[in-house]
Amino acid sequence: MSEHIVVNGRSYRTPSAPTIVVCIDGCEQEYINQAILAGKAPFLASLREAGVGTALTGDCVVPSFTNPNNLSIVTGRPPSVHGICGNFFFDEASGAEVLMNDPKYLRAPTILAEMARAGRRVAVVTAKDKLRALLGHGLRGICFSAEKAQEARIDTHGVEQIVERVGMPVPSVYSAELSEFVFAAGLELLRHERPDVIYLSTTDYVQHKHAPGTPEANDFYAMMDRYFAKYHEAGAVLAITADHGMNAKTDALGRPRVVYLQDRLDERFGEQTSRVILPITDPYVVHHGALGSYATIYVRDRDRVREISRFVASLDGVESVLDRAEASERFELPADRIGDLVVLGERLTALGSAADQHDLSGLTVPLRSHGGLSEQKVPLILNRKLRELDGARRLRNFDAFDLALNHVA
Amino acid sequence: MSEHIVVNGRSYRTPSAPTIVVCIDGCEQEYINQAILAGKAPFLASLREAGVGTALTGDCVVPSFTNPNNLSIVTGRPPSVHGICGNFFFDEASGAEVLMNDPKYLRAPTILAEMARAGRRVAVVTAKDKLRALLGHGLRGICFSAEKAQEARIDTHGVEQIVERVGMPVPSVYSAELSEFVFAAGLELLRHERPDVIYLSTTDYVQHKHAPGTPEANDFYAMMDRYFAKYHEAGAVLAITADHGMNAKTDALGRPRVVYLQDRLDERFGEQTSRVILPITDPYVVHHGALGSYATIYVRDRDRVREISRFVASLDGVESVLDRAEASERFELPADRIGDLVVLGERLTALGSAADQHDLSGLTVPLRSHGGLSEQKVPLILNRKLRELDGARRLRNFDAFDLALNHVA
Repeated sequence: MSEHIVVNGRSYRTPSAPTIVVCIDGCEQEYINQAILAGKAPFLASLREAGVGTALTGDCVVPSFTNPNNLSIVTGRPPSVHGICGNFFFDEASGAEVLMNDPKYLRAPTILAEMARAGRRVAVVTAKDKLRALLGHGLRGICFSAEKAQEARIDTHGVEQIVERVGMPVPSVYSAELSEFVFAAGLELLRHERPDVIYLSTTDYVQHKHAPGTPEANDFYAMMDRYFAKYHEAGAVLAITADHGMNAKTDALGRPRVVYLQDRLDERFGEQTSRVILPITDPYVVHHGALGSYATIYVRDRDRVREISRFVASLDGVESVLDRAEASERFELPADRIGDLVVLGERLTALGSAADQHDLSGLTVPLRSHGGLSEQKVPLILNRKLRELDGARRLRNFDAFDLALNHVA
Repeated sequence: MSEHIVVNGRSYRTPSAPTIVVCIDGCEQEYINQAILAGKAPFLASLREAGVGTALTGDCVVPSFTNPNNLSIVTGRPPSVHGICGNFFFDEASGAEVLMNDPKYLRAPTILAEMARAGRRVAVVTAKDKLRALLGHGLRGICFSAEKAQEARIDTHGVEQIVERVGMPVPSVYSAELSEFVFAAGLELLRHERPDVIYLSTTDYVQHKHAPGTPEANDFYAMMDRYFAKYHEAGAVLAITADHGMNAKTDALGRPRVVYLQDRLDERFGEQTSRVILPITDPYVVHHGALGSYATIYVRDRDRVREISRFVASLDGVESVLDRAEASERFELPADRIGDLVVLGERLTALGSAADQHDLSGLTVPLRSHGGLSEQKVPLILNRKLRELDGARRLRNFDAFDLALNHVA
């Protein structure tokens, strides 16, 4: 008989086989589809065969950004519960933009930490270090980033000498290899520590640069496919999902399509009447110039919220505008950490603040980004058949642990 | 001083240089973007340079199907004016599905016919023959299809011996070459007849099969790019748009995602209570199995329309459901030729009628299709700078003649 733990009101069976949940950053489903078509992902292709695997489509959290979704996957709940709704929020009391990478902003325990507390061995490997502290919060186990793998120590990261053990040099933070290091480290841990639960989270460096079906994208998915096959051969239960999709934010000739909201608002209503926050902003913006399809707006004079909302909704490229109450209800966001308005860009349009605040010099290829509703569909793929799954249930990427632990046949 | 003609309430200057409007069937903007990135479309890439060309993004007509959009482009108006809102409508009086390929269903004159009536030389070349009769309605000029080019006669098509003149064998209706024949014929006519206005319309055979950036798609756009460069060198004003975009309608492993509406409705409400019409259905369905992201529903008992609407809106994969009045207003459709309900599928989902009515055996590659809001963004590219264009104006693909004739600098 298996044991259960309850985390954030959801029950999870403790695993009987090593269970690996992979979050492929920026995995628009078409990447996998095209890699299979090009013959580059034979393991993933094999999951289509009868009785072998499961491929479902789920909805990620909006804003379709990395941190909110990674935290949802590891807590099993939306941002209204865990509190992380972007990289930044605006603290009206202090008048400052606050980086939410610190675990003090996390309002819920993770499945990972609770599994460890229940005596299971848990390992977490992320590509970028920015996620490590949040994902590893309260976790007694292994937790390190590829970016700073050489800093891993037993007392702080639960493992040491990992670079030597993996046998790969630590890659650049802007590279496909950073994600490969995550998978190689995952395999090394699976073979030697054999953790009960492994969470692997990559970076979307490749997806920001390369469209589905292009040689670079196909090679990246071929690399992942080889590791997935090895995890499968080693007997692991494997659940693959994504934090968000990815779309071009350009015109047909590859030039960025951007609505610079702060410029438009200042021009229309005057400076200092509103403040546009782009919660995609983080210390690593080279590949997207802090341009995504989600923005929040803080309005100085609350009486003008509706007027400003109507104006923003009328802008070409804006898909919809929700006020704080609507947005926090519809997208299950913490109302105290979003603006008076939440703005979603159309699929092919990004939202900026002021044009002179965005450095696009790092965009060597046409802008691809995420953040909006158009990047909400993500894969939920398992190397097992599922049972007792309600067909009418709306699936979320943050059901990955539920599917892998509670529904594997 | 240039002359003007007025067609369907819009004024058009008669051209001073040969003016070519190209409708690339299924041209999701990313096809051009990726072809440029791959170095396959140097002419289109050159239009980005200062002072050379113009690239805008416009909205096509919903349903994002071929016939409604081609007719909108050549009439300059939405389907509420020209009447063609799909390949089929359901005639409630006779209880029969009626094919709308016959010009008797066309309710407005075309810019092409009116230009010819004003004494200008006009030529139309379509890929498939199904569009020829509609596009050529009332036209004294050249009008033929690549599919039946060998049937072209002076008295019926305004030209003869065109296969011999083009010097290409007549290609299969399911081929990339069918579209190439259109461009080759256009070039032959431009060089010899030098028409004042040429309208070229391709087929989306390639786009239904191949994603942007794949070798087959890039080769197809490279072919077009070579012809566009030749038209440009020959002094033509060139406006390139599309009837609709194109998206995968699959899961991550490439299997079709389809909501079979008739099955769901029959199961829930009983047979004979509603009839699902898929206006994408036409005699050439091999490459999409008549599956798109748009459907209309005729409801036998009008009192049940709201109940059925709510049910359909609740189905996973359905983006929205509009009643006849809402749909005809929002999408400017002829209310007498749509059903009681109009249903739009989500970007990655197609809508079917009954599963056993769809032959998917011809789908040798993962389903790609169109019909919904997600395929509404299309390119509006010109080989000239534009002038006197209102920046706040919502651009449509059916503004192509307006831009090429009235706004070229």
